[in-house]
Amino acid sequence: MKLKHWILYLFVLSINVNAQREYEKGAREIGIHSLERFKSFLALANDASNGNEIQDNIRWVEEQLYIHDFEVKLLKTSSLPLMIANLTINNKLPTVAFYMHLDGQAVDRSKWNQEDPYKAVIKQKNATGFQIISWDVLNDDNIDDLRIFARSSSDDKGPFSMFLTALDYLNSKNKRPEYNLKLILDFEEEQSSPGLPESVKTHKEDLLAELLLIFDGPMHSSGRPTLVFGNRGIATLTLTTYGPITAQHSGHYGNYIPNPALALSKVLASMKDDLGRVVVPKFYNGVFIDPLTKKVLEAVPSEDASIKSRTQISTTDQVGLTYQESIQYPSLNIRGMRSGWVGKEARTIIPATATAEMDIRLVVESDPLALIAGVKLHIENLGYTVLNHEPTKEERLNNAKIIKINSKIAYPAYRTDTQTKEGKWLTKIIEDYYSESPVIIRTSGGSVPISPFVSELRVPAIGVPTVNLDNNQHSPNENIRVGNYLKGIETYLAILTSKF
Amino acid sequence: MKLKHWILYLFVLSINVNAQREYEKGAREIGIHSLERFKSFLALANDASNGNEIQDNIRWVEEQLYIHDFEVKLLKTSSLPLMIANLTINNKLPTVAFYMHLDGQAVDRSKWNQEDPYKAVIKQKNATGFQIISWDVLNDDNIDDLRIFARSSSDDKGPFSMFLTALDYLNSKNKRPEYNLKLILDFEEEQSSPGLPESVKTHKEDLLAELLLIFDGPMHSSGRPTLVFGNRGIATLTLTTYGPITAQHSGHYGNYIPNPALALSKVLASMKDDLGRVVVPKFYNGVFIDPLTKKVLEAVPSEDASIKSRTQISTTDQVGLTYQESIQYPSLNIRGMRSGWVGKEARTIIPATATAEMDIRLVVESDPLALIAGVKLHIENLGYTVLNHEPTKEERLNNAKIIKINSKIAYPAYRTDTQTKEGKWLTKIIEDYYSESPVIIRTSGGSVPISPFVSELRVPAIGVPTVNLDNNQHSPNENIRVGNYLKGIETYLAILTSKF
Repeated sequence: MKLKHWILYLFVLSINVNAQREYEKGAREIGIHSLERFKSFLALANDASNGNEIQDNIRWVEEQLYIHDFEVKLLKTSSLPLMIANLTINNKLPTVAFYMHLDGQAVDRSKWNQEDPYKAVIKQKNATGFQIISWDVLNDDNIDDLRIFARSSSDDKGPFSMFLTALDYLNSKNKRPEYNLKLILDFEEEQSSPGLPESVKTHKEDLLAELLLIFDGPMHSSGRPTLVFGNRGIATLTLTTYGPITAQHSGHYGNYIPNPALALSKVLASMKDDLGRVVVPKFYNGVFIDPLTKKVLEAVPSEDASIKSRTQISTTDQVGLTYQESIQYPSLNIRGMRSGWVGKEARTIIPATATAEMDIRLVVESDPLALIAGVKLHIENLGYTVLNHEPTKEERLNNAKIIKINSKIAYPAYRTDTQTKEGKWLTKIIEDYYSESPVIIRTSGGSVPISPFVSELRVPAIGVPTVNLDNNQHSPNENIRVGNYLKGIETYLAILTSKF
Repeated sequence: MKLKHWILYLFVLSINVNAQREYEKGAREIGIHSLERFKSFLALANDASNGNEIQDNIRWVEEQLYIHDFEVKLLKTSSLPLMIANLTINNKLPTVAFYMHLDGQAVDRSKWNQEDPYKAVIKQKNATGFQIISWDVLNDDNIDDLRIFARSSSDDKGPFSMFLTALDYLNSKNKRPEYNLKLILDFEEEQSSPGLPESVKTHKEDLLAELLLIFDGPMHSSGRPTLVFGNRGIATLTLTTYGPITAQHSGHYGNYIPNPALALSKVLASMKDDLGRVVVPKFYNGVFIDPLTKKVLEAVPSEDASIKSRTQISTTDQVGLTYQESIQYPSLNIRGMRSGWVGKEARTIIPATATAEMDIRLVVESDPLALIAGVKLHIENLGYTVLNHEPTKEERLNNAKIIKINSKIAYPAYRTDTQTKEGKWLTKIIEDYYSESPVIIRTSGGSVPISPFVSELRVPAIGVPTVNLDNNQHSPNENIRVGNYLKGIETYLAILTSKF
């Protein structure tokens, strides 16, 4: 690099550092100030299986959005309403959609180490674990490693609170976002967003945008800024095999009446080899890790060793060479299996049926219908008559091998190319702001309810996780690290103030 | 056949018919009279999980046995006592032991079509099912097809009541049994008789006899008199395979963290071929259906077609050529299987463990320890490290394939040769009395707690079932057909009055 390039580089760097400093100073102050409002939001119970709880949250959110000049609309669905909030800066500007969800997982109060999961507390980690300390300490400087414990603190009220605070900051500076904003606020994500896929069809005009940013989920385990460019989809299969019409005495009939648990075991065993690779023909069709993709995957700090040691396994399935490679492929997983009884309830019977619940995690290359059809064909080739209903007496008496298969495609996969205009735009913002390149996740293994939005409306989507990985999401003692909360506000600011 | 042979044959037949007539006349009358006592016995609740209930039954039985001159002894066990009652006719005579059990299965009152499962009712079958009728009708002649409904009516208080009534009859005629009698009365058979195997060791002297007759269980489905010369034994295995130390998200880790339900399926699937035959080496060792045995099995009226149509199966396992052949072999059955959750509770996880409960039905040729060792070796040959405890962290991290196997030998098998002196003696009694040859069951598929008595003390044993097959044993609405009850008394009389 020549000297003039060095000077240019340092100049650009100083602008970034200055920009960062600017946010840091003001945003941190306003961020700490926002924690009282965050606390009162967390105080609203938000289990979506209780519609009344959700109504309280909707009212609170609406009020906040009116203050910030949004036009709020509740889209009717066959389930809970979906909230759309628009902040139009200028009709000529593009629109960027932000997705967050504001419902939380149900709570089991007995398992929380605090009075009430909806009454946020501050905790400090010491040698024996987390101890509750006074909320007043939040006025101090050295608070980044403290945690706020409450249901939805990380998943996903935290990011919404960061977002509101970023708007507060912009208001305080008389600034506005650099594009039109569309919030898509989901109040039933933890119930798998039953109203979302239909909204994509019935309210298309209300949902369209140039880019969708998903603010949900934790940052990479390395702690580095993270961008998620895709999520696997999910389909489910329920398989049931049949023995005698009612359970029979295993003494009188063992060796004579066929056992449905053995039949199911043989079916399941036939689907994968000893290295965990699906052997159903064409299951991995279309998936190929090209050299460029390999580079993207290799750039992700490896979690392979830590997954193995954390989950105490000595070997892994060999679908890909690494964890990142593995989740680029569709998966076929037995999530549950049952026949008869085990343990103290065990009975000396030949069970009447055996059932397996499976999930297929889909990737963009997967045709969900083709994968399900492939599994069915594979089982037919084992000699099975495949039904989608309980077998009739005639079907039972006329077929030696019967299996019932019910399937459901829950969400499709989506993946936004990292090299698109949108991908490059966001990557640069994060890179500039943090002065380090973000961890680029090509595909995250899990599935998100927002994906039909992406796959149906063809809007590119990127996930921007801000919360700490050890947040106990979905579990008792959910928390958010204060440092992540404050840094998250700055992340929003960096994104909101960048021309799209 | 020459004329003189014909005359001899008719003469012998007339003696038998006369003997039968003699019993019929008096025993039937005294049998009908005994039903009031039977009813009061059935009124005593007898669930062995409730010790107090059993004490009431013990007192009632003791009282009846004192009346009939028995010496009663309660053998202490680590569980409920075992009752031994001796009626010594003459010290020079041999001793025949009679086994019955007097506890019953627990009752679910809501499922009984009568006020109280312990308040016996008489029912008559009509087009719509069984209807309660007056108890007074039992004085009539045409009562054989009526049923007495109550817990333990068939299993196994009915046979004890028949036995008492047979003694009443002998007393009324000033007759005594032709040998010394030893009753072995079990008050916890429905709990698998936990005190019985130890009694065989600690109270050997009290239990020895020349022959054991087991009065329990139903007659063959043909309705013909039945003798059971053997029962399969039972051992159990619990197999557990291991995935991640705690259940993991199937999206994030599907394709990477090995699934324990798949591992278990592969283990189970490897144990049997597609025709249901165990492929674990040496599993069927020593079992051979020789031509003589084949004849014995073929003489049993075939139930193959009725089992298939009743249980609605189109094909059966092919361990033997027929049902009777199949149960001459040990069996390996999956009685329960569980991993994760199914149905509404299904969760998108890679489960932490998968468990299968298996039972091995043993035959006399089986060495239970060798069969269990064979299954373990077979699984080791699949690459598994077999443990008998939960794996430690070190064991998990150092072994790709871990399985925990816990096993228990519950009861051994027993089988008395049909051609022994005892077998021929009993067969002739039944043949003479019923004027038809009994159904000879070489091995019954189920297992009985009394079998350690046979296998340890080397006493030949034969089962003499008297009750109707459709007695709803172990289920709600247990019953006994009055005709079976009355005929059972005569069966006891035929046996008690035959020189051994």
